[in-house]
Amino acid sequence: MNYGEKSLKMHEQNKGKVSIKSKVEVTNKEDLSIAYTPGVAEPCLQINKRKDDVYKYTCKGNMVAVVSDGSAVLGLGNIGPEAALPVMEGKAILFKEFAGVDAFPICLATQDVNEIINSVKMIEPVFGGINLEDISAPRCFEIEEKLKEELDIPVFHDDQHGTAIIVSAGIINAAKLAEKKLEDLEIVINGPGSAGIAICKMLLSLNVKNILLCDRKGILNLKSENLNKVQKEMLKYTNKNNESGTLADALKGKDVFIGVSKPKMLTGEMVKTMADKSIIFAMANPDPEILPEEAREAGAFIVGTGRSDFPNQVNNVLAFPGIFKGALECGARQINEEMKLAAAYAIANFVDNAKLNREYILPLAFEEGISKAVAEAVKKAAKDTNVCRW
Amino acid sequence: MNYGEKSLKMHEQNKGKVSIKSKVEVTNKEDLSIAYTPGVAEPCLQINKRKDDVYKYTCKGNMVAVVSDGSAVLGLGNIGPEAALPVMEGKAILFKEFAGVDAFPICLATQDVNEIINSVKMIEPVFGGINLEDISAPRCFEIEEKLKEELDIPVFHDDQHGTAIIVSAGIINAAKLAEKKLEDLEIVINGPGSAGIAICKMLLSLNVKNILLCDRKGILNLKSENLNKVQKEMLKYTNKNNESGTLADALKGKDVFIGVSKPKMLTGEMVKTMADKSIIFAMANPDPEILPEEAREAGAFIVGTGRSDFPNQVNNVLAFPGIFKGALECGARQINEEMKLAAAYAIANFVDNAKLNREYILPLAFEEGISKAVAEAVKKAAKDTNVCRW
Repeated sequence: MNYGEKSLKMHEQNKGKVSIKSKVEVTNKEDLSIAYTPGVAEPCLQINKRKDDVYKYTCKGNMVAVVSDGSAVLGLGNIGPEAALPVMEGKAILFKEFAGVDAFPICLATQDVNEIINSVKMIEPVFGGINLEDISAPRCFEIEEKLKEELDIPVFHDDQHGTAIIVSAGIINAAKLAEKKLEDLEIVINGPGSAGIAICKMLLSLNVKNILLCDRKGILNLKSENLNKVQKEMLKYTNKNNESGTLADALKGKDVFIGVSKPKMLTGEMVKTMADKSIIFAMANPDPEILPEEAREAGAFIVGTGRSDFPNQVNNVLAFPGIFKGALECGARQINEEMKLAAAYAIANFVDNAKLNREYILPLAFEEGISKAVAEAVKKAAKDTNVCRW
Repeated sequence: MNYGEKSLKMHEQNKGKVSIKSKVEVTNKEDLSIAYTPGVAEPCLQINKRKDDVYKYTCKGNMVAVVSDGSAVLGLGNIGPEAALPVMEGKAILFKEFAGVDAFPICLATQDVNEIINSVKMIEPVFGGINLEDISAPRCFEIEEKLKEELDIPVFHDDQHGTAIIVSAGIINAAKLAEKKLEDLEIVINGPGSAGIAICKMLLSLNVKNILLCDRKGILNLKSENLNKVQKEMLKYTNKNNESGTLADALKGKDVFIGVSKPKMLTGEMVKTMADKSIIFAMANPDPEILPEEAREAGAFIVGTGRSDFPNQVNNVLAFPGIFKGALECGARQINEEMKLAAAYAIANFVDNAKLNREYILPLAFEEGISKAVAEAVKKAAKDTNVCRW
């Protein structure tokens, strides 16, 4: 039985994955009078007096909404909110299992940008953080941007930033092994969608200076047509010589290929033209842009993919549980660039230098302590940048 | 230490009451591949093919939203969504503790009727039912009505219907003891707000023919000023002789007083003027319209209140957990009048006739089996009225 069949069976047996649990027992009149009326009036009145006491007396401070409109779910495309629910439930339980963070799936019956923004604003009182998930580009950029402006709690689009953080952690460690400096790396990112753009931004924050973005037509440059607002914006910081050409052209002599595109986009021939000790992150799902074996045969020094059955898995579960845990624990009002960079370095540094090697540049998903390490680093960065409530 | 202090301490220690629990363990790669990617794509695809499969593979079928705008919370008034959260969390855990129904608090950052309606419609994909709570009248009527029209899942305003169901159950049993027929009862309802109107409607469904509604100015009649739409509507079915006068006038010779109004509205003098074997439901919180002792001294045959420290507590927890459990178990598309009546009779009949007496006309909150009995009756009524998905 394959994973699909097993998953179907498991979901049917359990009727999904998320359930509600009471933190307190209610088995007699006394319990009822404390958890509910008349006693419950007291925390209500305290919060009414001082709104931030909602963090003290309710579930808000440890509760994340996993919000999607079902427009770009896994590799399945626009399957709508109901069909997206198994993924959002899955994400919710990963928050709990990996970091003890309570998370609840919110699948919205709209794909209108303003309605999504408004719905999230409406439900905000119950949540300490918003994890946006599987919302298609470029809509996801506007939704995240507006929500960050209007809400005083962390808003984080995991498909963008979670991926960018893990890739960055991987690049940090791969560069160590290749004995190259981050600022000297020449990088090509194939697939300028939500993840590709976020990776690009984060690499710029890591002081990488030479980045080319490619789409199916080749290198993005000032003459490229049909670029969205964010892609145009990125041309200010990438492709400084306004190069043009195909992906194959782009890769000649380059140190790093990062693929968030489609299966089989990268060939061994292209890898052969790259610089010595080349680094490949081929993250198309379910089949990577190039298979690790083929890349290695063509001379790649380090290869990572999105898959758990190959070494160097780029897995967001290393990041989002710990990031929200850290942000929630200090009552952070946002997840800013400094906090994301801290998370990337915490993940990279979690791999013991003595054990670091070409097939182990990132922690494994189930290594003990990773979410705690990420949370501590994120909290410190939040404090250093003064975004904490306490 | 009183309940308020104990409650404050408990809420602070636990940081609220609601937490998320995963129905499955995720402790290794295999678990992850089944609960999340790549396996999770399979239930997603099934639901994409057949939308109602969302009931088969997700938490939706057992998940209720406890929705409030914080406009009329307990007796505290309009304290807003954050301050309402402890009550909504409380309600959520009662669903779980009393009937195994998962429920999640949704406190909305708006008190605009259309925004509330729209927000609930937006989050509907995740929920199998909507429990509206502590929304002020007459807004609550419009919100419930519109949502019932537009959603294909049960929508139930507990302050209205939960209360009406328990009062009806109490009246059914009180009438048995008083040896009066329901259709012969003459009833005065004091407090024509959301609960009072719902009680009135339900008593009409129980075939009660003589009802007067009173507000602070006295009996509602065709000349009353400032009545809202719903109160005007009720005049078609109540006060057939278009009587006027005070509450004291209204009560002369009547069988039943039902108070959902303010403390101390009813005097012993008024009770003395009522019919023989009079029945008093004095449900103002925290102090009833009349204290049971005073009512009994004035000749009342049966007295119920909202309080757990007096006999005959009218407690909604007898109804809403079982009602939703029943509705969810058969995939009901609504909670209709027949289902509510079935719940009222199930609650009334749960009290063994041999044990039924003037101080025990309603089951106690923690009696074993009540929610199951209610659920079975509600399910049967749902099937008989063809509102079930399966």
